[in-house]
Amino acid sequence: MPTAIVNELVSVLGSERVVTSGDLLEQRRHDYWVRSHLDDHQGRPAPRPACVVRPVSVEEVVAVVNACRRRGAPLIPFGLGSGVCGGVIAREDAVLLDMSAMNRVRAIDETNLLAEFDAGKNGLEAEKVVAMRGLTIGHWPQSIAVSSVGGWIATRASGQFSTAYGNIEDIVYSIEAVLPNGEVVRLGRAPRAAAGPDLRHLLLGSEGTLGVITGVTLSLRWAPERSAHSAYYAKTMAAGLDAQRRIVQGGWSPPVMRQYDTVEATRNFAESARGEDSLLFMVHEGPSGRVEAEVSGVDAIVRKAGLEPAPVEVVRKWLDARNHVPTWESFLKNGIILDTIEISAAWDKISGIYDAVTASVKQVPGVLAATAHSSHVYRSGVNLYFTFAARPERREDMAATYDECWRRVIETTAAHGGGIAHHHGIGRVRRNYLHHDLGPGGVALLQTLKRALDPVGFMNPGVLIPDA
Amino acid sequence: MPTAIVNELVSVLGSERVVTSGDLLEQRRHDYWVRSHLDDHQGRPAPRPACVVRPVSVEEVVAVVNACRRRGAPLIPFGLGSGVCGGVIAREDAVLLDMSAMNRVRAIDETNLLAEFDAGKNGLEAEKVVAMRGLTIGHWPQSIAVSSVGGWIATRASGQFSTAYGNIEDIVYSIEAVLPNGEVVRLGRAPRAAAGPDLRHLLLGSEGTLGVITGVTLSLRWAPERSAHSAYYAKTMAAGLDAQRRIVQGGWSPPVMRQYDTVEATRNFAESARGEDSLLFMVHEGPSGRVEAEVSGVDAIVRKAGLEPAPVEVVRKWLDARNHVPTWESFLKNGIILDTIEISAAWDKISGIYDAVTASVKQVPGVLAATAHSSHVYRSGVNLYFTFAARPERREDMAATYDECWRRVIETTAAHGGGIAHHHGIGRVRRNYLHHDLGPGGVALLQTLKRALDPVGFMNPGVLIPDA
Repeated sequence: MPTAIVNELVSVLGSERVVTSGDLLEQRRHDYWVRSHLDDHQGRPAPRPACVVRPVSVEEVVAVVNACRRRGAPLIPFGLGSGVCGGVIAREDAVLLDMSAMNRVRAIDETNLLAEFDAGKNGLEAEKVVAMRGLTIGHWPQSIAVSSVGGWIATRASGQFSTAYGNIEDIVYSIEAVLPNGEVVRLGRAPRAAAGPDLRHLLLGSEGTLGVITGVTLSLRWAPERSAHSAYYAKTMAAGLDAQRRIVQGGWSPPVMRQYDTVEATRNFAESARGEDSLLFMVHEGPSGRVEAEVSGVDAIVRKAGLEPAPVEVVRKWLDARNHVPTWESFLKNGIILDTIEISAAWDKISGIYDAVTASVKQVPGVLAATAHSSHVYRSGVNLYFTFAARPERREDMAATYDECWRRVIETTAAHGGGIAHHHGIGRVRRNYLHHDLGPGGVALLQTLKRALDPVGFMNPGVLIPDA
Repeated sequence: MPTAIVNELVSVLGSERVVTSGDLLEQRRHDYWVRSHLDDHQGRPAPRPACVVRPVSVEEVVAVVNACRRRGAPLIPFGLGSGVCGGVIAREDAVLLDMSAMNRVRAIDETNLLAEFDAGKNGLEAEKVVAMRGLTIGHWPQSIAVSSVGGWIATRASGQFSTAYGNIEDIVYSIEAVLPNGEVVRLGRAPRAAAGPDLRHLLLGSEGTLGVITGVTLSLRWAPERSAHSAYYAKTMAAGLDAQRRIVQGGWSPPVMRQYDTVEATRNFAESARGEDSLLFMVHEGPSGRVEAEVSGVDAIVRKAGLEPAPVEVVRKWLDARNHVPTWESFLKNGIILDTIEISAAWDKISGIYDAVTASVKQVPGVLAATAHSSHVYRSGVNLYFTFAARPERREDMAATYDECWRRVIETTAAHGGGIAHHHGIGRVRRNYLHHDLGPGGVALLQTLKRALDPVGFMNPGVLIPDA
């Protein structure tokens, strides 16, 4: 164990904040990336960190950052561990910075509709505390019950209601962070600014490589006056996607727009699925008059596009199950490796990507299914959320099968002009594919930023940024 | 004249692209900042640049950037020169990079609603070319007829329809730029990405200090099906602002929401102004059903807040005059110095800022008027657009009077917790106030970025970034 850094941290923070043994070290070895679970399952466990540090104040985070930088000890920020791309994997010489003890509600402001939290605040707890005042953050990632508000920023998260309410970058008002040099910055002091580059965007999506997010102020909404549901059958995935395009380009913005391919419609909504049809449904929210106008406007567009009404009960069923997070272990025990991969693309590319990706992944030996749904809609395009599951003949091939499925999804998406990462981030699983989104110049620019902010290279090494 | 860099540019680009004499050098000495016009008027003209370079391709921009960097020659990007904060002031050793010859429409995509332009494309021409297809960019800065699409990005511009359609950062899809190291980046390849920090934000608001923007892809909308106008009187500025808060927090988003104080209402809408009342008006746009719901929903909120209907003709009058850009010369000849200063703040601070700023500026000797209107609304707050005019007793005091009015607006806004720059940018006029928005850590971070991207320091020196 690298005792020097651990001893220093104990001397600065006190021994109750620096955990060096026990279950916590075991639990903080990695995030929710299925590949790390597979490695555990197959006897290749990630090492424990040298220690887990649990600060309760910004000042303590500064002390940890400064100690690690000076000693060159790898520092790995950890929110609530719900990441699914391998953004957290410990090493024996690393300090694991567990933010979960920084979980206060700092302020709720009903005049300006702002709420400020410690970065480690659980997302669902944050939502509940504003909901008690009739407010909502409007950000509902599937992981809301197991993720932190700081993690939302660090990974550039999206919520299920993003089509109207925006992704996390549209909801965040200000970010407090400790930079690798130990400096505390508080970025975002006004409703909008033209005061140079928006520096909040250095931290949004930085995945622990450019600083530690310690506080987050989010912009709220009043809970909607009215909510309505609608659902439709489309003959093909392409027909449903085109209808979605017409809806959003027609000036409507249902907070939720989701479309499932045939297999996923049957898997998730067996009682309502119809033959080979794809299933599209929406949640409409807002002032009553606007919701009524939207339900009627959307219905006209969708019927003109040839879609047919489906039972709206599917929406309630989805709402009830939407924050379920799967456990990997039961699948792994059965020799099954599975994952979801979200990408996005312009409208004229998305159906081609759906067809090519599902066809390509199905050719990987052992693959049981390759399916998709869409869940986040923009005037310029839409995301696809692929799911694959595979049971290779030999269990020792599970990791290679997993990697090959990922490779096919990402390379096929990129070859068709899509973006390789919609909202789960890069972590380790996409790191070697990042050039597809940024281009060589963009990757070099990101490397330049990293060197400038963290010349020691101690902040979450091995994540996000390709090696120079 | 620094002949070495000029000779190199001539040898690389040809003499027809490198202008070393004539009116163009005179015209490109500075942008539309009234302080530069005052200096001209009073015999303190900014120097001519060593040359004006007019590239027609990205490759030529790369050649200019590389030549200037290698020789350490200051490079000053210039779009169409409509900036009002002193982002462009030439010097004798500088290369003025005039982007106006890069003005092609690269592509218009009616499926994905995207349009790509050379950065030097005139804004109104860009809007007109998409309008011919029934589309709109939806970005209407007052300067639209005299600004470039690249300038919109470089300054983080806002348009008059921003309350529904967003500011330029919400409209931009991708940015092509030449970095100070000569590398070409093309950032933004998908409708949305979680692929590390959004690097487009390094260029949005960079004001020529971190790269040269060469191409811009914008996300479009179909022209609205329906448009409607509404107008109201508010007894006080504060009452009208509070009504605006209730509208936008109530879930409505009229693209245009503007409120004028008593003096500006009388100045701009004499036939409709009423006593001491403030005047609030809106443009509602979208699908018919939504517009009808909004007009009715807004009316209910506003009347409940105690406002009374005003003649909607004011909206037409504003629409007809809204892209008028004042000429400074007639004022300067009469010994009058004037300017507009836009700031923003959270709702609970904005009325206090209005009162304190107007009271403070009126105390400056020679000030004739200090007024304001609001024009960009957010759930969390709103902007104010102050106008001041002063005629000091002695003409030689005009510059000092101007500086003192600015100082009071900015320092008073900051003291009351507002943001010092809503949408005109920083340039030179706000540079020494930037710490109010970014904090000392943020300013240091911006300086770090500048050193990392432009270690030579040749890109638009003296602008935006405070000296270290």
